[in-house]
Amino acid sequence: MADTYNIAVAGATGAVGTVMLTLLEQRGFPVGKVRALASERSAGQKVPFAGGEIEVEELTAESFEGIDIALFSAGAARSKEFAPAAVNAGAVVIDNSSAFRMDPGVPLVVPEVNPEDLKWHEGLIANPNCSTIQMVVALKPILDAVGIRRIVVTTFQSVSGTGNPAIEELFAQSEAMLESGEVKVEIYPHQIAFNILPHIDYFHDNGYTNEEVKLIKETRKIFGVPDMGVTATCVRVPVFNSHSESVNVQTIRPVSAEEVRRLMLDAPGIKVVDDPTTNSYPMPLMAEGTDDVFVGRIRADESADNALNLWVVSDNLRKGAAANAVQIAEYLVEHELLE
Amino acid sequence: MADTYNIAVAGATGAVGTVMLTLLEQRGFPVGKVRALASERSAGQKVPFAGGEIEVEELTAESFEGIDIALFSAGAARSKEFAPAAVNAGAVVIDNSSAFRMDPGVPLVVPEVNPEDLKWHEGLIANPNCSTIQMVVALKPILDAVGIRRIVVTTFQSVSGTGNPAIEELFAQSEAMLESGEVKVEIYPHQIAFNILPHIDYFHDNGYTNEEVKLIKETRKIFGVPDMGVTATCVRVPVFNSHSESVNVQTIRPVSAEEVRRLMLDAPGIKVVDDPTTNSYPMPLMAEGTDDVFVGRIRADESADNALNLWVVSDNLRKGAAANAVQIAEYLVEHELLE
Repeated sequence: MADTYNIAVAGATGAVGTVMLTLLEQRGFPVGKVRALASERSAGQKVPFAGGEIEVEELTAESFEGIDIALFSAGAARSKEFAPAAVNAGAVVIDNSSAFRMDPGVPLVVPEVNPEDLKWHEGLIANPNCSTIQMVVALKPILDAVGIRRIVVTTFQSVSGTGNPAIEELFAQSEAMLESGEVKVEIYPHQIAFNILPHIDYFHDNGYTNEEVKLIKETRKIFGVPDMGVTATCVRVPVFNSHSESVNVQTIRPVSAEEVRRLMLDAPGIKVVDDPTTNSYPMPLMAEGTDDVFVGRIRADESADNALNLWVVSDNLRKGAAANAVQIAEYLVEHELLE
Repeated sequence: MADTYNIAVAGATGAVGTVMLTLLEQRGFPVGKVRALASERSAGQKVPFAGGEIEVEELTAESFEGIDIALFSAGAARSKEFAPAAVNAGAVVIDNSSAFRMDPGVPLVVPEVNPEDLKWHEGLIANPNCSTIQMVVALKPILDAVGIRRIVVTTFQSVSGTGNPAIEELFAQSEAMLESGEVKVEIYPHQIAFNILPHIDYFHDNGYTNEEVKLIKETRKIFGVPDMGVTATCVRVPVFNSHSESVNVQTIRPVSAEEVRRLMLDAPGIKVVDDPTTNSYPMPLMAEGTDDVFVGRIRADESADNALNLWVVSDNLRKGAAANAVQIAEYLVEHELLE
């Protein structure tokens, strides 16, 4: 086991990439050399790291010489183009894009849920979609204790999931609305400020969005239950950061809300916030800047056998993206899985 | 059948009351005398009506002399105090509060869904909760065609449902956030600007909020199916007006998404907006200022037998409150049910 590891962050100027750099430092990852990679357009910019600055280099097939771990968050097209070069150069790639997630030869991992899948990686590990990660962390204790028959989830997703330009658009549109100015619509197909869009990513022929399809398929792969009943409605809301999810779950064996609450108190990565008497429940502003998955509003649903409702909130840039990737890197190091 | 009807609006200065006055005019209701009633504090104010203004009078037990129809939207306590006096004075009361909704002797009516219940009123008719109205309008064609076994609904509710002070709070908090100023929290227990609160109305001992309990119980009463499976998660979002709902429904007999879309195109009160190829789906900003219930994202849910997902949006001050009340008044007049 080496003392330090050379890290490349591809997409280092993006919303997730900047948080990856922050977390490598904050979580005390044993970093050797760090290389910040981005498109040609961003090359030469500086990004902050560990009290200093790193100059951003252009992402190319030659960027990965001497790199041990490459964290990719530069979009699916760039992952497809450059991740193989990184693997060939001897790096282990942890890819935050959707490019390889459903590839049967690529583990799709949330360390609290299926770390065992890291053992069979062949140089490439996929980081799940933000909306998937927080849901599977919350449901894992239920899956283990009583099994899951069906999940009906509705998401409330923040604009940071789209990236920095969407954060700027929500800001600018909100300002324009409050001043009765003209609202410009550029990133999303419709105004997002003070509005709700039941539309994330492109539409499939069956009427589902790609975000919904990802949430359904990734959940089944991570849980290792290919026929689990899962349906989703994914919705963009005018929130800067952190996703919320209303999750209805039908279990195979009966379990009480009280027992679920107890299971979650012992589960890794989960913070239970569930006290109606003090108006305590998870909210985006509460989760922001943390690596936990917040769970509350845990209650029995009497409309079906063995059914429960939960409310799940997490910072989509951190646990939903950067933190999960860094946690995978930590696990690889701890368990000597970098070869 | 009289030519005109004398109307009293109790709560005439509130968010719903002002829309009631607007709609009486816009929908061409045969109005005789109109009396605008509110608390002592608001007496003497003027409210606009039909191009002119009406002076607001204090709501008392003596306010209903000569009134044919009294539209109440002044909160449950005032309805309990003054609705009986209005009925005794010979008026028919259409009450927008929760005071009498679950009273077995009081019809709870959405004109597109259960107008037949207006026939047995005894002077008092309850207007359902905003989140209930739009859902039952959307589901009625499905109920009639194939029956409903279970509903799992998650709401995205705007602040106008709380009233004018909440609209002002969202505005002020949003402005403060954009200017990095100090955010004041007064109406809701937590900041609503750029945040999400899974909490509407008070909590019951079973962990459900009263809004969720209302949505469940009112749906069963309006549909006349006391044991229908219904569960709800009700959520406040930073939107000024119009509620959105993610509705998962399991039907008794099978039905395709295409057939549901066709049923809805023929159904009263529903506007189908459902074309992914043009990014067309219901949104709060689309529904605002209309009396329709907008339905889209209609798709089969393969996670269970006979399951479907829908997305339902409506202006909570109009169809969710004032428009439904005025439509009840229109129905009473047309069918000579004012005696």
